[in-house]
Amino acid sequence: MVKAKIAVNGYGTIGKRVADAVQAQDDMEVIGISKTKPNYEAAVAHQLGYDIYAPAENVGAFEKAGMRAAGTIEEMIEKADLVVDCTPGGIGEGNKPLYQKAGVKAIWQGGESHTIAGFSFNAASNYEGALGRDLVRVVSCNTTGLCRVISPIDRELGVKKVRVTLARRAADPNDVKKGPINAIVPDPIKLPSHHGPDVRSVLPQIDITTAALKIPTTLMHVHTVNMEVNTDCTADDIKKIFGSQSRIRFVGQGISSTAEIIEFARDIRRPRNDMWENCIWAESITVHEKEFYFFQAIHQESIVVPENVDAIRAMMELESDGAKSIEKTNKAIGL
Amino acid sequence: MVKAKIAVNGYGTIGKRVADAVQAQDDMEVIGISKTKPNYEAAVAHQLGYDIYAPAENVGAFEKAGMRAAGTIEEMIEKADLVVDCTPGGIGEGNKPLYQKAGVKAIWQGGESHTIAGFSFNAASNYEGALGRDLVRVVSCNTTGLCRVISPIDRELGVKKVRVTLARRAADPNDVKKGPINAIVPDPIKLPSHHGPDVRSVLPQIDITTAALKIPTTLMHVHTVNMEVNTDCTADDIKKIFGSQSRIRFVGQGISSTAEIIEFARDIRRPRNDMWENCIWAESITVHEKEFYFFQAIHQESIVVPENVDAIRAMMELESDGAKSIEKTNKAIGL
Repeated sequence: MVKAKIAVNGYGTIGKRVADAVQAQDDMEVIGISKTKPNYEAAVAHQLGYDIYAPAENVGAFEKAGMRAAGTIEEMIEKADLVVDCTPGGIGEGNKPLYQKAGVKAIWQGGESHTIAGFSFNAASNYEGALGRDLVRVVSCNTTGLCRVISPIDRELGVKKVRVTLARRAADPNDVKKGPINAIVPDPIKLPSHHGPDVRSVLPQIDITTAALKIPTTLMHVHTVNMEVNTDCTADDIKKIFGSQSRIRFVGQGISSTAEIIEFARDIRRPRNDMWENCIWAESITVHEKEFYFFQAIHQESIVVPENVDAIRAMMELESDGAKSIEKTNKAIGL
Repeated sequence: MVKAKIAVNGYGTIGKRVADAVQAQDDMEVIGISKTKPNYEAAVAHQLGYDIYAPAENVGAFEKAGMRAAGTIEEMIEKADLVVDCTPGGIGEGNKPLYQKAGVKAIWQGGESHTIAGFSFNAASNYEGALGRDLVRVVSCNTTGLCRVISPIDRELGVKKVRVTLARRAADPNDVKKGPINAIVPDPIKLPSHHGPDVRSVLPQIDITTAALKIPTTLMHVHTVNMEVNTDCTADDIKKIFGSQSRIRFVGQGISSTAEIIEFARDIRRPRNDMWENCIWAESITVHEKEFYFFQAIHQESIVVPENVDAIRAMMELESDGAKSIEKTNKAIGL
């Protein structure tokens, strides 16, 4: 089988993980990654054997740093069937003409707006809608985490209303520039936060309001989720529905915080301690009449990674069945 | 007028503030405070001129540290009309026989259970119910903050349902022993948290569920509050109701976090940078049909302090009108 040729444009927090996950599949391969500067992340990409592409003006700097660039970013795009744009939020939009000129398919991340692609993707929610598409946006970590729990509940019980408070990590573990150090920041102050509308870019039928607080931690986000449903149910019914989803993991056994989830990910030898699944505290699932509550933790660095792989598979029409793609992706990365 | 004689048993975070607030009133006075060890807080109490009482076995240690104790804790209680118990949560219960033997009235803090006094107090909610009582519990910081916003809305619009997520400071500013340093801790994991039932100890008619997350900050708690009401309303209606409450303060003008609220309290020369009011971000008040949302910050160290003064005034029958007591307390402490 000819593998789909994938370029990863931007090799930061998301890009480096997407590259590894794509490389682990048997129906697609990374033909190159792009990096603007020859820093420590580029050095690791070089060690891992990825072909590195750079902006034309920086090719010389890579040479000097002992990691010869395979060419310019434009040359990388020419060679690809599909580009996964993992540049920082807001930058990706400027790359659209480049991809269209080269006639390649493109995936953007949740930092870009829905309109960039006209289709926002979550594998458990709308895989089939991405089949054969040229442009797709994979929604952000928080939106992915919400779509994964809302979709199956909506299918089984019918969702009436969702209310979520997100306690958001203020910065990623490698980010030394950002605060707060000791404060709680309602962000945005004006309600609702953008997460609710963003969920509706995938699940337009869902009535959802969200509020977000930025807090001094780097490991994971935590959501307090409240859902009103149309059907009588018990906590066991909810557990059964969540339990049927491969990208939802129940936590317990003394895991009392996000720190212990990450420690567990390290212990089970996950690459970069990644936790691709929503982590739901089973004990927190509480039903009161047709309304239930639970806590879930979301690993902002990695949760969208398998989603990008599934988006590629749908757009390249390598698999028409979403459930099969999810299973294939999971197996290849060790989920 | 003879002033009511108040003893403050326990001179930590809450006790030292209650002592200063009582001393600022013209109808009550502090006849003594108790401290177990002659540490830095005891030294400041000594400087401020409070009579210090100690456990019999530690009286010598105070003498040696250059701050002679005025007597034993039992002797302090004998001299008082009313004891405000500000010992750590769970310790206060053991003091009940001591107070009853001495025939003094007693106030406990929110760390004790409702049953210790049989009456849980919040000035804006049930001042009149405390008139002449011998035993009263002043509810905790979070419960106080919730009662202050729920009561006036329930009176004006009728509350159907309240849903709150509390982002709780993990430790007080002077607490160097506690974590988490870098994690989010759902606490408790099992929902709802105790705060909802605790609000019902003051407002039994209210349908409320609460979820709490412990996070790495020391300054203040932040609540995301959702209320369903029985009456159509606008954001301006809600602002008008909150604006009529002297212990609710709107924040804005570039205040984007708890850190800036505390900076503001320092700038306006509040003692110990205390913020006795609920701080509500006016901009966050958002109405959707008969349901509204907002953010409020709660200063855990000081919010219950004026409530303790009002509880004293009700129990000693120094003032029969709750609104007048609140006004008097506020004026004396500079709120």
